[in-house]
Parts: sequence; structure tokens; C-alpha cells
Amino acid sequence: GSSKKAEPAPGLAWFGSSKKVEAPGDDLPETPRGPRPWKAAAVGGGSWGNTVAMLIAQNTAELKDWDDEVKMQIFDEIVLTEADMYGIRELTSGSSNGTITLPEGGFGTKLSEIINTDHENVKYLPGVKLPEHLKAEPDMEAAISDADVVVIGVPDQFIVPTCAKMKPFLKPSARLILLAKGIEFVNDKLLPVTEVVAHELGFPSAQICCLMGANIAKEVAFGQFSESTLGCRNSDDLRWLEPIVSRPFFRIGTVRNVEGPQMCGALKNVVAIGKGIIDGMGMSSNTIAALMRIGMKEMQGFIL
Amino acid sequence: GSSKKAEPAPGLAWFGSSKKVEAPGDDLPETPRGPRPWKAAAVGGGSWGNTVAMLIAQNTAELKDWDDEVKMQIFDEIVLTEADMYGIRELTSGSSNGTITLPEGGFGTKLSEIINTDHENVKYLPGVKLPEHLKAEPDMEAAISDADVVVIGVPDQFIVPTCAKMKPFLKPSARLILLAKGIEFVNDKLLPVTEVVAHELGFPSAQICCLMGANIAKEVAFGQFSESTLGCRNSDDLRWLEPIVSRPFFRIGTVRNVEGPQMCGALKNVVAIGKGIIDGMGMSSNTIAALMRIGMKEMQGFIL
Repeated sequence: GSSKKAEPAPGLAWFGSSKKVEAPGDDLPETPRGPRPWKAAAVGGGSWGNTVAMLIAQNTAELKDWDDEVKMQIFDEIVLTEADMYGIRELTSGSSNGTITLPEGGFGTKLSEIINTDHENVKYLPGVKLPEHLKAEPDMEAAISDADVVVIGVPDQFIVPTCAKMKPFLKPSARLILLAKGIEFVNDKLLPVTEVVAHELGFPSAQICCLMGANIAKEVAFGQFSESTLGCRNSDDLRWLEPIVSRPFFRIGTVRNVEGPQMCGALKNVVAIGKGIIDGMGMSSNTIAALMRIGMKEMQGFIL
Repeated sequence: GSSKKAEPAPGLAWFGSSKKVEAPGDDLPETPRGPRPWKAAAVGGGSWGNTVAMLIAQNTAELKDWDDEVKMQIFDEIVLTEADMYGIRELTSGSSNGTITLPEGGFGTKLSEIINTDHENVKYLPGVKLPEHLKAEPDMEAAISDADVVVIGVPDQFIVPTCAKMKPFLKPSARLILLAKGIEFVNDKLLPVTEVVAHELGFPSAQICCLMGANIAKEVAFGQFSESTLGCRNSDDLRWLEPIVSRPFFRIGTVRNVEGPQMCGALKNVVAIGKGIIDGMGMSSNTIAALMRIGMKEMQGFIL
């Protein structure tokens, strides 16, 4: 493993919590990392998963310790492109006897082929130019088996089956960065999704990190200034992973626990739904300010 | 003084800080209060001062320990009402030789007369029906000399001259509730405006309270759900004053210090200006979320 003990970038202190929450994990012995160049991969190619995979690919291209190529495992949907639809129209208008003949395999193109040829995720991130070294890969083994870091970008409800699919191919030293927000209830106790992942993979908890923020994927994908929080129990991992997630327009705050960001990531949605209700009721900015302030205090009270 | 030691209303805990900031003042001997019924008054009749005076008048009408009548000292501006303007038009159109004769005293009506006759502050709260027992009173002595509590609703820059005008007429036992947000720099040190007021009036600091929130006056005046924070050093005063400020649509959180709310009241405007800049630059909701979160952490770091 790396014994580099680089200090966090100066800008980080500005984003850091004034009150550091200490958590188990930092006292753990360093878990081993594979030799350089390290390799990053992603699982899930929805709008947020693809966006984070893109940010990481932008970083790996700039960081010499990292392999440029980032593979993104996606469930290969068939997409009807404009060309496909023109094809249907031509066939339909050309059929004189009322029947049309389908091409072999039916209409449509695999999303992975579109991403790897046109470098655009036309289904989940239309209009965003993806780096050429971000490769869509339907096969799980090919996608993640050589990865030192895997971003898991599938929705909460698919976490458990996704872990089952990943488990046979993961390096034991791999770190996972979880994007899904969610809290499970197990025996009436709150269980953060990172713990579910650790349990499903049979990995030490300290190897499961999370990235959480209040962000709309498309805005990040189009480079709007945003910020998010990376949580790792192990401070060495935090310093290792921060540079591949952070971009100049996507500032990363760091915390040395995974429970806090996950609780915030889940609970903020309760406040956000309240905001929607207030808007729908035609209520005003004072009410929104009240909801935000009290909502944040309630989140804080719930978490701390 | 009252020795009633009522617990805060159950709803309050919900709004209260999870981390109580203790401040000097609570150990002070109780300062005396005048005999019941207590009397509330206001100084300043701008949109926010008038709104708070109105909330207090709504409460005094419901609370038997308080005199219904609330006098509001205002600088008596001359307002051109619609009737005045029709008068000008008639005079102008009726003048055949090109000259018009002004009525004695000129055109216009005193704002205090309009408020006391029509129960509407046509200049600063047009469209809001004021309680009849909220009386505009240009004379400072008549307005405040019998008041047990005076709300000071003038802008920050007029606080010192306003205190000079108030000083000869205040009861020594009177509590002041300051609405102005501002921090003075005295000898390179931050001085909350409550301290400036205490100094100018020669009053003990514990008698100067503050009411601060992120509110647009007009929205409160029209009964939109809002919340605000009442700060008093003395917890007995806090319990005494909370019921005359709080309304069902205007929920009051309470803190036992005056510095925190004032710092928040002033610093939030820095973040609000940032929000305006972000809007003006056409940036998006992620950026606003980043500004809000980081801005609040910076405020917290600055204050605590």
C-alpha cells in the first residue's frame, strides 16, 4: 500500500467540518492496495452513476498514478436511436402489402455500443460529451476484476443483487464508493447502506466509502459548480480517493465516517419533499426558509 | 417581578437548539417588572417594525396580563393619498389662469392619522389590516413612557439617535426587543448592536433582547408561515416575552443569548447576496445548494 501521507489540499479546510466526527476505522491497519497504476471502475450507468464515472475518468486522465481507462458496467438496454426510427418509418412507408419485415435482432442499438462509439449516454445523459477512455462494459467480470476502486451507482433497491453480481470478481483490496442514499431497517435498528454492502460482499466496513451531496446529476454533468461529501472511515483512503472524485467545478468535502453523509443524503430528501409541498401550496419564501432551517436542525438532532 | 417559572411551550423544544449556548445574564437577579397589566410599545413603523408591532398587538388582545393597546412611535411622514391626488387634479383642471391655490398646510395626510383612522399603514404595509388597538403615535414620550417592553424597529444606522430620543422617557425596568441586524466595530472588536443600545440607554445588557429571522416583512404581515428566533440573556424574560411575539403562523425559537441571533441575522445577508449573484450569473440549483451549505458552515465557524 501507499505510505504517502499527503496533506489534504489547502482548499479543503474551507469545506471541512469544524467539528470532526471521529469514527472507528482510522486506527485500523492499512488495507493493501494493488500496484500502480491504480484502476478505477464504475457499476451502473444511470445519470448520476455515469456522471461520477465521467468525473473520475476526467481525473484519471490527469493523474499519473492512475490508469486512464475507466470501465463502466451497465445493464445493456436497447435504445431506439433516431437512425433506428427513420429505419422504421422507411420500412413502414415502403410496405405496400401492409406487412413489414424486421431486421435480424429487431430494431434498436445497444446502449453500450452507442456510448463506446458516439461517447454519449443518449438515454441518461443526452447532450453530454463523455471521455473516450470511459468505456461502457456490460460484462461484470471484464468491468471490475482489475479495479482498485469501484463506484457503485445503482439505485438503493438494486444494491443487494448488484453486490451478489460483483462479489465473485472483486479484488479483496478493492475500495467501494457508494452513491446510493438509503437507510435499511434491520431488527428495528438503522443500518447504513454501506454496512449492507460490506455484509453482502464480505468486505471490511472500512473499505466501503460513500459520496453524498445535494446535486442534480445533469447540472454536474454540464459542469455547473457543485459540491459533495466523500466519507471514508480510513483517513488514508480519504486522501487517496479524494483526488479522483474532486473536479474544479465539483468540490469535495471530506469526513472520516460514512454514517453521517448517508444519513444526511437520505434525510435531506424528506426536507426536499417538504419544499415541494410548500411550493405546491403556494406558500412563500419565509416558509421555505423556516423549513430549511428547522429541517436541518432536525436532521442534526436525529443524526448526532 | 413575576416569579412564575412556566416551562416553555411543548412545541418549543422542536424549534430549540439541540446545543444550548449558555450566556451571562441568567444568573443575574431578576430585574423588576412594572405591575400588571403590562404594556408593550414599538418604535419605528417601517414594514418590519410595523409587522412585529402588529403581531404583538394581536397577542396583547388575547393575553389577559397585557394591556391591549400597543402604541407605535413613528416619524410622521406626509403621505399623498388617492383623495389628495384627486384634489390636485381637480384644482389643476379648474385653474383657468394657470395658477393653483394650495390648501393650508399643503397637500397630503399624516401617516399617523391614516393608520389611526383607516388601520392601514399605506406607505409600508399597504393592504394589511392593522388591529384598531395598534396606535401610531408621533410623540416619543406618549408612545413609550408607560411601556414595560419596547420593540425597536428602526434601521441599524438610526439606532444611536433613536436611543437618544428614547432615553429620557423609558422606565428603568423596561425590556427592549431589537429588530435591527447589525454588528458594530469598536476598537477593532465586534460589538453586537444590543450592546450599543445598552450603552446608549445606560441599561443593563440583560434587559436588551433581540428578535432575528430570515423573513420578508410583507409575507409575515399577510400571515404566511414563518419562524424567527428570540434571544434574551435572562431565561425568565425569555419565557415572559415569547408569548407576546409568537403567533400560530410566526413560530418563535428561543435562545439564551443575544450575540448568536445577531451574528446570524447579519451574516445570513452575506449568503443571501451570494445567492443573488449566483442567480444573476444563471447558475443552477447545485450551486445554490453548495452556497447554502458552505455558507452556513462558514457562519457557524465564524460565530462559534
